[in-house]
Amino acid sequence: MKFIIFLISFSFILSTTAQTDAEVLKNIYTTSLTNGNSYQWLDYLSNQIGGRLSGSLNAEKAVEYTKEELEKLGLDKVWLQPVMVPKWVRGTPEFAFIETAPGVTTNVNICALGGSIATKFGGLKANVIEVKSIEELETLGKDQIEGKIVFFNRPMQADLIQTFEAYGGCVDQRYAGAMEAAKFGAVGVIVRSMNLRQDNFPHTGSMTYGDLPLSDRIPSAAISTNHANELSSMLALNKDLKFYFSQTCQQLKDVQSYNVIGQITGSEFPNEYIIVGGHLDSWDLGDGSHDDGAGVVQSMDVLRLLKESGIKPKRSIRVVLFMNEENGLRGATKYAEVAKQKGENHIFSLESDLGGFTPRGFSFDCSDANFNQVLSWKELFKPYLIHYFEKGRSGADVGPLKTDSNVLAGLRPDSQRYFDYHHAANDTFDAVNKRELELGAATMTSLVYLFDKYGINPISNDKQIKN
Amino acid sequence: MKFIIFLISFSFILSTTAQTDAEVLKNIYTTSLTNGNSYQWLDYLSNQIGGRLSGSLNAEKAVEYTKEELEKLGLDKVWLQPVMVPKWVRGTPEFAFIETAPGVTTNVNICALGGSIATKFGGLKANVIEVKSIEELETLGKDQIEGKIVFFNRPMQADLIQTFEAYGGCVDQRYAGAMEAAKFGAVGVIVRSMNLRQDNFPHTGSMTYGDLPLSDRIPSAAISTNHANELSSMLALNKDLKFYFSQTCQQLKDVQSYNVIGQITGSEFPNEYIIVGGHLDSWDLGDGSHDDGAGVVQSMDVLRLLKESGIKPKRSIRVVLFMNEENGLRGATKYAEVAKQKGENHIFSLESDLGGFTPRGFSFDCSDANFNQVLSWKELFKPYLIHYFEKGRSGADVGPLKTDSNVLAGLRPDSQRYFDYHHAANDTFDAVNKRELELGAATMTSLVYLFDKYGINPISNDKQIKN
Repeated sequence: MKFIIFLISFSFILSTTAQTDAEVLKNIYTTSLTNGNSYQWLDYLSNQIGGRLSGSLNAEKAVEYTKEELEKLGLDKVWLQPVMVPKWVRGTPEFAFIETAPGVTTNVNICALGGSIATKFGGLKANVIEVKSIEELETLGKDQIEGKIVFFNRPMQADLIQTFEAYGGCVDQRYAGAMEAAKFGAVGVIVRSMNLRQDNFPHTGSMTYGDLPLSDRIPSAAISTNHANELSSMLALNKDLKFYFSQTCQQLKDVQSYNVIGQITGSEFPNEYIIVGGHLDSWDLGDGSHDDGAGVVQSMDVLRLLKESGIKPKRSIRVVLFMNEENGLRGATKYAEVAKQKGENHIFSLESDLGGFTPRGFSFDCSDANFNQVLSWKELFKPYLIHYFEKGRSGADVGPLKTDSNVLAGLRPDSQRYFDYHHAANDTFDAVNKRELELGAATMTSLVYLFDKYGINPISNDKQIKN
Repeated sequence: MKFIIFLISFSFILSTTAQTDAEVLKNIYTTSLTNGNSYQWLDYLSNQIGGRLSGSLNAEKAVEYTKEELEKLGLDKVWLQPVMVPKWVRGTPEFAFIETAPGVTTNVNICALGGSIATKFGGLKANVIEVKSIEELETLGKDQIEGKIVFFNRPMQADLIQTFEAYGGCVDQRYAGAMEAAKFGAVGVIVRSMNLRQDNFPHTGSMTYGDLPLSDRIPSAAISTNHANELSSMLALNKDLKFYFSQTCQQLKDVQSYNVIGQITGSEFPNEYIIVGGHLDSWDLGDGSHDDGAGVVQSMDVLRLLKESGIKPKRSIRVVLFMNEENGLRGATKYAEVAKQKGENHIFSLESDLGGFTPRGFSFDCSDANFNQVLSWKELFKPYLIHYFEKGRSGADVGPLKTDSNVLAGLRPDSQRYFDYHHAANDTFDAVNKRELELGAATMTSLVYLFDKYGINPISNDKQIKN
């Protein structure tokens, strides 16, 4: 009899006591892995819509689709935030070859860099000078560069464990190569694709001409790693070979677009905002599944998983799908501008924009006190093999929200395969693994749950909560 | 002047002082990522040889190829260790359909399980009873099972973070399903593939009839997850549907095969052995790139990377490429038997047999003292994002070497994608990422280096080293 009473009491305690954080996280992960929706959303976004370059029809379809899907979730508010975005179009497929003697040509795979001008009608053919860095241009001087196509061929550094570091060490060639080479009289620029793998995919990405007058601008394209190696080998044998390329891309007038925003309004501190987001635009070559379809659908699922898990946030939780991260950051700039105007207190902003791979942890841009609070939660994540909690960069879209006291963070998935797909035609749905994507959504939801429950600025936490 | 003298002294110290462990590990990782050979070997093993089922011509080609490649490395000794292995052959491609009414059929993808008998000439057609477990057979009893095909359809549990646990919770259906169902008069067995993904690939794997007399044995095959779902749905609508399958597999006589072994002989303790290995055989449907081509080439590269890094081991380091892990474990059994006969002291044995994915760490089967020594090295691995050091299972092939005092370990790569490919036709070279594979080889080499340098049994380490 005593035993039965004990059992009844015990059940009573279980049903009335709040779940521990460990139990909440377990529930979130289980829900994501058995009843997640991120993969289904990504399937539609990738396979029914496809690449979503800012200003394109697909980008607008993605705005409509994600807004409709968020509306189905029963959030407190879903809306579009207008923002003007640049519209760059690729035109007809690019074409390029190496010519070792008149009529003796080898086709190579290139793609125009985002923001580049077209080649003149009929294409551009010139001698090539290979360099490994922008600095090398200065050494060579106008003598050796004028009238030529500059071929930037510094590979990503394979021995860096985190591939983003290798990207950071190379991307200046792509971003500023044409602007710098033009100053020495180059007529065009070809850049080795930012890819650690040897394959035939050219990888696009943004570039700038800075303040260069329109008349001085030169066309710029990426070449696949295999063809970069081929061009380099052929140049070693024959410095007088010519490179031909043709591209018809152009920059049109800015057009109207939108950030897509959904909100669960906080029950206790509605003017403290926690946002989670990714960017809705993508490059146009693939369908943008990893960059950043994954971040979009994971962020959408954070709000859904909170609801599915029966969590009623104290603070206002927003999903923000930013437009135009790739070639302008206009959506992120607009969002931060409006948040400031409205005096919204964004205490924690989390971005997922490093692919839908197995999550390893987060990097944080915040004070030591806030970071220490995060470290106190680290053990909660251990069952999910989430181990990486470091200070570092957050994400491009949440960056403009930075203040002295808030917390920005970026999800850090395993980075080994990211640059196999980044900005290339093979960034497609089949390259995303369902479980890896869902684990990312659960990991993000768990961190949002903890920041919602405990707030930020733990040293003066009591005071802050009472305000 | 003083400064110059200081510089000279400093250089002198640098050149004569041994590298720190951190420096050695950095060198190992850099070498593997920039000058590894694991991927190139895997390319040959997968694309020039292919699936390597024990007793097959391909298995023998793999023995020859890996022996020749090890001989090129300038090891102290390379040899073949003879072992008799079972020879099971698949025969002509399997064929199966669901028949909902006479002549109304839906084809489904199946593959015979390794070790299964064939269906009788012309195939087998019968009613189907779906179960979720072996235990359920008892509940149903002979009444409901006799004369039917038993369809084991318990899926892998998606909410387990480590997919091997989900496999462990399901594989009894595949391994023992036919043996148990036969006892209740079943005429055949169809098992849901051990795959967390919904796709069309059937996944083979070993099964047993135990002591069942030959005359009582029934054929057993795996069905793809998509078709398992389809069969289950159709059964829910129509319990009287029939399932047809035909397979011509058979068990032939044992044949001669080999373990392939290479050795760097230790400079101080030549009779203390450290081995690193994977299994050379694979299933026959794909080319066995993840299971276990990856483990084979990583293990080969451990010895090569030690040499490339200028490390001269104190203990004897062996790479052992085990034959017949998949359907007999004969190679592992033989290796342990010979080691025991020769009184070889195997202090540390490491296996890689969980796929060529991003390494996360190791699991260890050893004493607390040895495990604590491992934990003292954990910080050295942090720059490489290697964080998982837990006690647990090592590997099937190193298992027979277990003693009270030695250390067994298994490399633990990220497990999320492993069962997408495991024992199926899509376990092919393109599913392996070069960097992920190379990081695994470097991680294994680093641990081998540390065990070689510090030995085992740290509590009585001095004594042990002096022996």
